Amino acid sequence: MDTKEIELITQSVIKAMGASTYKETGYMVPVGISNRHIHLTQEAVETLFGPGHQLTKKKELMGGQFACEECVTIVGLKLRAIENVRVLGPTRKANQVEISVTDARKLGITVPVRESGDTAGSAPIAIVGPKGAIYLKEGCIVAARHIHMSPSDAQAAGVKDGDYVGVKVDNERGTIFNKVKIRVDDSFTLEMHIDTDEANASGIGPNNKVMIIK
Amino acid sequence: MDTKEIELITQSVIKAMGASTYKETGYMVPVGISNRHIHLTQEAVETLFGPGHQLTKKKELMGGQFACEECVTIVGLKLRAIENVRVLGPTRKANQVEISVTDARKLGITVPVRESGDTAGSAPIAIVGPKGAIYLKEGCIVAARHIHMSPSDAQAAGVKDGDYVGVKVDNERGTIFNKVKIRVDDSFTLEMHIDTDEANASGIGPNNKVMIIK
Repeated sequence: MDTKEIELITQSVIKAMGASTYKETGYMVPVGISNRHIHLTQEAVETLFGPGHQLTKKKELMGGQFACEECVTIVGLKLRAIENVRVLGPTRKANQVEISVTDARKLGITVPVRESGDTAGSAPIAIVGPKGAIYLKEGCIVAARHIHMSPSDAQAAGVKDGDYVGVKVDNERGTIFNKVKIRVDDSFTLEMHIDTDEANASGIGPNNKVMIIK
Repeated sequence: MDTKEIELITQSVIKAMGASTYKETGYMVPVGISNRHIHLTQEAVETLFGPGHQLTKKKELMGGQFACEECVTIVGLKLRAIENVRVLGPTRKANQVEISVTDARKLGITVPVRESGDTAGSAPIAIVGPKGAIYLKEGCIVAARHIHMSPSDAQAAGVKDGDYVGVKVDNERGTIFNKVKIRVDDSFTLEMHIDTDEANASGIGPNNKVMIIK
């Protein structure tokens, strides 16, 4: 091995040691666990809950969103149902149902893992409210893991909008979630969003924190 | 940096590069997904299904185990129930109920993550069959992730009984499961056992394989 090779290797290891140090002191992120829920247009709200109906805020969530008093029943292609699916407000430009893979299996349907808003070709689903029903030809997804953060959080964590990172869960059921997308916006509060399957499989509970490792 | 330091660092990096190569070519393991199920003593079988009752084999599983035609309903402390929980045979020396954290939440109870057989202080649960019911003061667990393998598999994978390894799932929902226990026995067929939460959170389906990475 000549001097140049040793130099290259030495540089690599110093870089690797730096990365390793970073791993041990990685950026900590609080976790929000999303149970199944639904986003509705105002038109859909009125179809499901009656003309002129406005969503009723039950609990504030991050980023100006809120859990509503309103719930619906969702029914999949095999006519199996899940009751009491929470509506999230405010109303949006498109309807979107977000469930876990466990829910999808209960409904007997195949649902793709997608980013919020990317519903083209996703699963069909029926939504039933007390005053009406709608049928979405597409719009049911399993939400892909992601982390919301502000530009200053992104700078502190050394990541940028659109990056994919790994996230380490350091507990009894130690898990690393890869392919976690970073989403940066001035309006975002620092929080990783995972679904109930991911929380249950990794032993994550309310108010837990995880670490960005790369 | 003197020559000795460079030498030490060079040795470290060569070792690390070896480990990295190992990661890319790690030992592949088929995955078995365990749905909620129950192991019973012969005494419990007779209480639940009637005097002299013998379990009826429905489907062969690995290691001489089998899914039975028999199912039970389990009821937790809050009196919430899950129906159609499959009995696994053959009968054992102790009763044990294995559920997911999702199931535990549905029952409204707290259930520890444990190795099979380690039920001391685990959750109480009632088991109801067509001819009787039993109440376990303890015996309900969430099964800890583990890999069954033969001594020759263990040698090939470079691990031994009782080791804990990481396991990489390389798919759309890329995940690494840490703290996976290696269990070696002559009777074991190579298979990683995970529960439905772990399979659903990591996008694992039937016949998928995962890779031991350390």
